[in-house]
Amino acid sequence: MKASQFLISTLKEAPADAEVVSHKLMTRAGMIKKLGAGIYNYMPMGLRVIRKVEAIVREEMNRAGAIEMTMPVVQPAELWQETGRFEKMGPELLRIKDRHGRDFVIQPTSEEVVTDVVRQEVRSYKQLPKNFYQIQTKFRDERRPRFGLMRGREFTMKDAYSFDRDVASAKASYQVMAGAYRKIFDRFGLTYRAVAADSGAIGGDLSEEFQVIAATGEDAIVYCPTSSYAANMEKAEALAPSQPRGAATQALTKTATPGKSTCEDVASLLNVPLSTTVKSLVLATDTLNDHGEIVKSQVWLLLLRGDHDMNEVKVGKLPGMEGGFRFATLTEIEDHFGCKPGYLGPLNLKKPVHLVADRDVAVMTDWICGANEEDFHITGVNWGRDLPEPALVADIRNVVAGDQSPDGQGELAIERGIEVGHVFYLGTKYSKAMNATFLDETGKPQFLEMGCYGIGITRLPAAAIEQNHDERGIIWPDAIAPFTVVICPIGMDRSEAVKQEAERIYTALLADGVDVILDDRGERPGAMFADWELIGVPHRITIGDKRLKDGQVEYQHRRDAESSKVAVADILGHLKGRLAP
Amino acid sequence: MKASQFLISTLKEAPADAEVVSHKLMTRAGMIKKLGAGIYNYMPMGLRVIRKVEAIVREEMNRAGAIEMTMPVVQPAELWQETGRFEKMGPELLRIKDRHGRDFVIQPTSEEVVTDVVRQEVRSYKQLPKNFYQIQTKFRDERRPRFGLMRGREFTMKDAYSFDRDVASAKASYQVMAGAYRKIFDRFGLTYRAVAADSGAIGGDLSEEFQVIAATGEDAIVYCPTSSYAANMEKAEALAPSQPRGAATQALTKTATPGKSTCEDVASLLNVPLSTTVKSLVLATDTLNDHGEIVKSQVWLLLLRGDHDMNEVKVGKLPGMEGGFRFATLTEIEDHFGCKPGYLGPLNLKKPVHLVADRDVAVMTDWICGANEEDFHITGVNWGRDLPEPALVADIRNVVAGDQSPDGQGELAIERGIEVGHVFYLGTKYSKAMNATFLDETGKPQFLEMGCYGIGITRLPAAAIEQNHDERGIIWPDAIAPFTVVICPIGMDRSEAVKQEAERIYTALLADGVDVILDDRGERPGAMFADWELIGVPHRITIGDKRLKDGQVEYQHRRDAESSKVAVADILGHLKGRLAP
Repeated sequence: MKASQFLISTLKEAPADAEVVSHKLMTRAGMIKKLGAGIYNYMPMGLRVIRKVEAIVREEMNRAGAIEMTMPVVQPAELWQETGRFEKMGPELLRIKDRHGRDFVIQPTSEEVVTDVVRQEVRSYKQLPKNFYQIQTKFRDERRPRFGLMRGREFTMKDAYSFDRDVASAKASYQVMAGAYRKIFDRFGLTYRAVAADSGAIGGDLSEEFQVIAATGEDAIVYCPTSSYAANMEKAEALAPSQPRGAATQALTKTATPGKSTCEDVASLLNVPLSTTVKSLVLATDTLNDHGEIVKSQVWLLLLRGDHDMNEVKVGKLPGMEGGFRFATLTEIEDHFGCKPGYLGPLNLKKPVHLVADRDVAVMTDWICGANEEDFHITGVNWGRDLPEPALVADIRNVVAGDQSPDGQGELAIERGIEVGHVFYLGTKYSKAMNATFLDETGKPQFLEMGCYGIGITRLPAAAIEQNHDERGIIWPDAIAPFTVVICPIGMDRSEAVKQEAERIYTALLADGVDVILDDRGERPGAMFADWELIGVPHRITIGDKRLKDGQVEYQHRRDAESSKVAVADILGHLKGRLAP
Repeated sequence: MKASQFLISTLKEAPADAEVVSHKLMTRAGMIKKLGAGIYNYMPMGLRVIRKVEAIVREEMNRAGAIEMTMPVVQPAELWQETGRFEKMGPELLRIKDRHGRDFVIQPTSEEVVTDVVRQEVRSYKQLPKNFYQIQTKFRDERRPRFGLMRGREFTMKDAYSFDRDVASAKASYQVMAGAYRKIFDRFGLTYRAVAADSGAIGGDLSEEFQVIAATGEDAIVYCPTSSYAANMEKAEALAPSQPRGAATQALTKTATPGKSTCEDVASLLNVPLSTTVKSLVLATDTLNDHGEIVKSQVWLLLLRGDHDMNEVKVGKLPGMEGGFRFATLTEIEDHFGCKPGYLGPLNLKKPVHLVADRDVAVMTDWICGANEEDFHITGVNWGRDLPEPALVADIRNVVAGDQSPDGQGELAIERGIEVGHVFYLGTKYSKAMNATFLDETGKPQFLEMGCYGIGITRLPAAAIEQNHDERGIIWPDAIAPFTVVICPIGMDRSEAVKQEAERIYTALLADGVDVILDDRGERPGAMFADWELIGVPHRITIGDKRLKDGQVEYQHRRDAESSKVAVADILGHLKGRLAP
């Protein structure tokens, strides 16, 4: 490609609404152009990146035995009504009426449609397993779209769906996909982690997120540097402390803590470690009748160490929480504790509550909690002596760095990531809702076992940039760079020698299958270099008249601090040594 | 690809709603699956065809200097309001409201968005010309979607838009695209014709349709077998007859034609050629005031030979018809002619009308028309003698086979076609509406000159099938076949020799870059052959135990009546000789 035949359109300033670096740089590098909130044109430079991402994904999906098809962007509501998602999904599901007033949606995913296809196509166990995927436009009407391609409304996703005859086979299909995802993410050339994720109501361990590591990532990732353990924050287990509870040493004492309503304030006032305090979180669960009216509410008291945070996913799995929970109302709190929030605790309750102690709280001695009296806390609290042993002890907190790894192989560390892929065992959730069956060897209909597997095709470039950039712009890995190599001739219009050498190297690289762009725009060197550093092409060859007279050109990798002089005769070999394998 | 790893899903019966052969065969061959009216899943077998069409289009568009980008499927209404198309387009423009109640459309084309991009990106004449294209999902909410992919609601289109500094340059860009289209359609391996089309209000000759020739085509195509002339029916000019009008020989005679209200009936009753009769078509034009109210209506009488049909596009270009026309009401007709339709003519009018004579009518002598009296016609009518020479003579009819070609190089013939591509010079229609300008050498803003260029990516396979099929199924040209070659081993599970030979040929073809599928499903020969003939793979190699013992396999092209025996050692060379170059 010659630059004069392409659209190179860089901007000095990032758009005012760009909050994250990938959004800023993709806009400034002319890769995307906003059309509306969360809706972007993929400009020529950006589309080249997206196409390379697609090609890698397609190749590895095919290699893993998945079969490509496409499902419509605009889908009739009927199938979505079969699973109930047409009603259950919130306004992020974009609903449409056609000219005849019939309901449609724009697909955010395609479980319904693919299950409908398979229930028609697959009749016998002999046709299984099957895995269908598509690379297709999706739409989610986010309430507050932002961060450019990171959280757009219209986006491209690769979604795959596996269909199997039984759980064992479904798990094998899941593992094939998880393996393909590792190959895909390896090929992208990004630092990533596959982390165990919560599989929600489905149960089992078959859910992993593929997280591109980046300091700006929205997700906290937990991993063990000395083992292979990795999970997202929702999933990562906090083990029960290995050391037993010590003996009580302090007397129970009511202490004035006027205006100190947080654990931090109390610890500071009393000059004790935050980890000696216990915070009280009051939740509630409701029992509904057939009309959806609340007939009974239960109040829960969750105790967590002052330096720990509640993990809502773990709390949602407590026995009795299956139907969901909410924070208690002020009325409920005062009714049970006789006190406002800020000074709550498990002692001197007005009415009984369901008490849950976090594993760490259960082994504490001489701890501090609210006195259920405004401006007072109690110190020297001890289980068994001052209150009964907790009826329910559970892991209800987020892990913190330094916690023991659940695999016992070291301590946990935490970093940030951007979720770009997800593999998920679905079980029979959709096949049951849509009566998608096959006949087994005995001729008996069985529900299909399913898995689903997504990759955010248009999100990936944004994640790559969050991980790989500097103050000058983007730094693409070779595999997904819009161009692998840029040739920058200086004064091409003045020097025939420069022009000839530029064309010679350009032609040689093209013949070698290298994705190269020759910048023949005639820009000044400073502007030209700034453009390509912003755009982030990883390899640059600069050809100038002066050096060329000495038989040299310059090579610079986007990560190199300086360019190196290379003999003209060696430049192709030198470049080859620097290209990603 | 091995068939066991793919989805081969053929049907004996076509769906009840399939009216055309391509719809029937694509469904029966498992290429598409209906999801809703005019909305289809592209099944794995069909998607392979679509991807090959896309690849050819992409390659030639790139080669012609067009730059790929994509514009969103869901587009904010604002730009569509700028050009007025949001209001003007009918219900085929699918309109949506998002969660905030803002208006959006699903793109049927993208003139507005691309013009918006270019008015931001292009500032100077130095950046011109530019041509941007996308291969993207489109939606048109057809009132009555039918014919499968031929007239679907959701479809894929390649749309390109050129931007130039002046008309001359825009015409050059148009010619580059027209040339690229010829290369694209040549590569598809289909019989097609590029025909001149009407360019509507824009004027000029820069509009061509690319029509795939098929007896079942919706469009009539006019061409001259002895020259390069080709046009669609709307555009094809009927030349004025070269022979002058003869002298009158008959007296004007009122003749009773009771109940004979058509030219056919009258000609039959009087036992004269239909070409001696003249039909009277009564149209009307309205003049509106600023409030859109009709302030004045004019009645027009168009005279056509009884064997000719009116061409609405040509009529719409008559002076005075610029604002559009309609058929006259019964009241208007009776008011001006004093008679009901069926017996109308230009003699004895009650009120004056605008009379337009077709070129052929203007040279007639002794003709027959209605008497403006029920159940009567007049014979022996002659211009100049019985009524004044026509004030306006114009080409207002469809050409018929045997007419002189407008280029004077022979006689016209007519065939049927399916429009799959269209190149169109747009001028400044959109750039003026959206104030899209660039600065010329003198720093003065000028409107961009535009062209637009479409190819129906998902329509093309349907058109290919309409042209290439037989009673057994589809016959794909090599370039867009889902697979180029199928290997059918017979009794692969029983014969190790058959299995080994099948694998050997399969591996050799794959290594040669041939798109081959090995049917390892273990179907019986009859079922296997029927599947592949229905699917339409052009080249088949059959390997059976008996022949293999004689050192032979069988080769059959999908168009061959019988298979030929080929020595095992020669099969690759033999196949190569049959593959499209």
